[in-house]
Amino acid sequence: MNTIPDMTAADIDEVVARAQKASPLVGVADNETRARWLEHVAAALEAQAPSLIEIAQEETHLPPARLEGEVARTTGQLRMFAQVVREGSYLEAIIDSADPNVTPPQPALHRMLVPLGPVAVYAASNFPFAFSVAGGDTASALGVGCPVVVKAHPSHPRLAQATGAVVTEALRQAGAPEGIFGLVAGHDAGIALVEHPGITAASFTGSLDGGRALFDRAAARPIPIPFYGELASINPVVVTAAADSDRGEELAAGLAQSFQLGIGQFCTKPGLVFVPQRSRIEALLPDHLKPAPHAMLSDSIGTAFKKRTSSYANIPGVELVADVHAAVKGGPSASIFAVSARDFAANSQALSAEVFGPTTVLVGYGNDQELYDALRLIPGSLTGTVHAQPDDAIDELVHILAQRSGRVLFGGWPTGVAVTWAQHHGGPYPSTTSIHTSVGATAVRRFQRPIVYQDAPDAALPPALRRSNPWGIPRRIDGQLRLAG
Amino acid sequence: MNTIPDMTAADIDEVVARAQKASPLVGVADNETRARWLEHVAAALEAQAPSLIEIAQEETHLPPARLEGEVARTTGQLRMFAQVVREGSYLEAIIDSADPNVTPPQPALHRMLVPLGPVAVYAASNFPFAFSVAGGDTASALGVGCPVVVKAHPSHPRLAQATGAVVTEALRQAGAPEGIFGLVAGHDAGIALVEHPGITAASFTGSLDGGRALFDRAAARPIPIPFYGELASINPVVVTAAADSDRGEELAAGLAQSFQLGIGQFCTKPGLVFVPQRSRIEALLPDHLKPAPHAMLSDSIGTAFKKRTSSYANIPGVELVADVHAAVKGGPSASIFAVSARDFAANSQALSAEVFGPTTVLVGYGNDQELYDALRLIPGSLTGTVHAQPDDAIDELVHILAQRSGRVLFGGWPTGVAVTWAQHHGGPYPSTTSIHTSVGATAVRRFQRPIVYQDAPDAALPPALRRSNPWGIPRRIDGQLRLAG
Repeated sequence: MNTIPDMTAADIDEVVARAQKASPLVGVADNETRARWLEHVAAALEAQAPSLIEIAQEETHLPPARLEGEVARTTGQLRMFAQVVREGSYLEAIIDSADPNVTPPQPALHRMLVPLGPVAVYAASNFPFAFSVAGGDTASALGVGCPVVVKAHPSHPRLAQATGAVVTEALRQAGAPEGIFGLVAGHDAGIALVEHPGITAASFTGSLDGGRALFDRAAARPIPIPFYGELASINPVVVTAAADSDRGEELAAGLAQSFQLGIGQFCTKPGLVFVPQRSRIEALLPDHLKPAPHAMLSDSIGTAFKKRTSSYANIPGVELVADVHAAVKGGPSASIFAVSARDFAANSQALSAEVFGPTTVLVGYGNDQELYDALRLIPGSLTGTVHAQPDDAIDELVHILAQRSGRVLFGGWPTGVAVTWAQHHGGPYPSTTSIHTSVGATAVRRFQRPIVYQDAPDAALPPALRRSNPWGIPRRIDGQLRLAG
Repeated sequence: MNTIPDMTAADIDEVVARAQKASPLVGVADNETRARWLEHVAAALEAQAPSLIEIAQEETHLPPARLEGEVARTTGQLRMFAQVVREGSYLEAIIDSADPNVTPPQPALHRMLVPLGPVAVYAASNFPFAFSVAGGDTASALGVGCPVVVKAHPSHPRLAQATGAVVTEALRQAGAPEGIFGLVAGHDAGIALVEHPGITAASFTGSLDGGRALFDRAAARPIPIPFYGELASINPVVVTAAADSDRGEELAAGLAQSFQLGIGQFCTKPGLVFVPQRSRIEALLPDHLKPAPHAMLSDSIGTAFKKRTSSYANIPGVELVADVHAAVKGGPSASIFAVSARDFAANSQALSAEVFGPTTVLVGYGNDQELYDALRLIPGSLTGTVHAQPDDAIDELVHILAQRSGRVLFGGWPTGVAVTWAQHHGGPYPSTTSIHTSVGATAVRRFQRPIVYQDAPDAALPPALRRSNPWGIPRRIDGQLRLAG
């Protein structure tokens, strides 16, 4: 397998220096221009999709249909951010007129958000398109005017390089400033990047250990920078007794589909499922266990999965309900474990740690109090799901899940994260390290900071703040929100 | 001088536990209820202002007129946040309707911001009302539904306690949940607070060293929390040759007023003033130097000021232009220093560090390039100010200042921070540690996190997201921003 050569400190300096040089030019481009850059990248990815997917398949073992879907998600995401940028609310323009009659006199204040500067994006392994080189972090940073330096994920180096070439060429053809996009590779390069004085923010999707190590370095810099990490999530699901009794079959099928989707390599995989004791789901779920149709993303991920599921045997009260070997040599065994809510409570830390791969743990609860007590032991998650019947009283349940997660689902399954205006993909630590999202329109807020101009002449203001509102964006004027135009 | 007794770890546990218990009740209160809590606190502070000001004067040496103004600022701030909460945009409500016809089908998503939970507020010394116990951090956290635990500043312990009692009683009378507000004191208590697992965010206004130490602890927690620190700012001011020549007299008077306001104890004090070589300002400024009319906020602040200004004598090229003894025993000498842009460049780090007190440094530049080069050496500041004539070309100047600060002033002086919708009081590190503001309507964003409800029945949603929009707040629905009602 070819790899991008690991980069030296001097290489990193050069890539970041180019990003810094591009930064004022990228930042000053108007909404329409930046939106078009994103659309150019989307079109170029579509044009090159067949060859990119071929490389992706070789490097990640993911099947073509899944990769085709992911390219569509990625191009759709780029186009959504183009729309977000055009719409203009993301600038959060606020104008307060001068008032000489108050004490002290109030100056004219014109506020908006401006780009932070060069952003480091750490690509993920499990979405080689949508959370990698041209993924949501890159799209949201470019969209708001930040140059991007991507740290390639070592599990798909050739794809990273090929995608990087497509992005670079698309941006060049669209007339974007040289240096707006760069790509670096190598473990040491990743560390040098987050510590580089020219980098103003970093985003990351990956493991708890790797993410926390980078977070710590970002915070320990002489000038600390925000580190937006999406690290680990167990994604609890709760099934009420009535739901289990009335819809056990449907729920078992749905759960099996969700935790084995992409052979369990999703950060939103349901890893803990709270079911009534002696549930229909537990009885039915083994029938839906499927041999993994392909290998895991990388050998090291496969090894870690095997180690983690083996370690369950050492946790008192945890039993293996069923497992099945993979359909391909070297692929992971899919498995289902079960534990009582009491035994879960005694070992909640070990059982609440994310396990990346096709396995899930059923936690059998005897009554509501046992359920609530167990849920309160779970660390922060991206999602929390309730399956209930219309007559169930679920207020307390929803409250507990909302305190511990960023997305609360009423029915359905947490895998699948719609890329829309309202989406929030984030949650209390360790699911993410910040109060912002990495998916959806508001992801752009991570790469902006406010600035206010006091008593500036109209001509000295950025267009978004001028009296004539030339970009036609929504603004708040003297406390009143005004729609575009 | 009486002090609040330092608190033990057990005391801190108790105060935080009460805040945690209050948290769900505070968070679920509606906009109108929370707005009224703030208004109750404002009214109570007004009613108790005479006695509070008396204590404040004894403890801080600040004159009554200044303290009266500050109480008005504080109550005005509480009422502004009440309006912000009532208006409802701060909830950032976004609704995406379900769409079963896309692939994959899009679920219904209802997003809003929710309170983080108990917030630690570290009171500042220099605004014993507006940035202390009942200041902007407390108001913005309470307003969005977070209980607050204030760490009292040791320089005004009796005022902290008296203000805390007024706030506690006002909230009680307004029917707010018990535990919504707490007060702790002592150096060790401050450290225990930021490390307490029940605290979800911290805000701080104070010194670089103290703030960075707390920031480091917040980041190093097993579960890191956001730390919103406002630490140190030099607030560069640039005067063009034409402005110096045409308005030197007015500018010298304005500068003198600004850097000596409150005897220089403001985070927005202009600490570096870039003037043409042999400027009129430098010639005229000494005439405006005034004996400090009162002592500094505390003995330790007075000692630090003396030490810092004395250290200027050791910096090559720095000369004392003028100084004058205080009008009161123990008060600080006011002073003016000057240095050439070249000597500044050689010692920019020492000369760019905030000095809290009545002194400023004039930096004489020979030409624009020297000026720009010098400005590029300055660390992040809260503000950057330009004094120019209409014909001056200032684009590059404004660009440089905008990169290094959060508020760019066209004329005027940085002291004085209007509390309005558009205000931004924050800037690149070390002026602040985050991408958010501590003054103005958007300060509330620091204490909120997003949550999204997927496919929730209307009745299960918080009122802000229900179909009928019972709170009448602005929301974005299917991508379209809709005004209130």
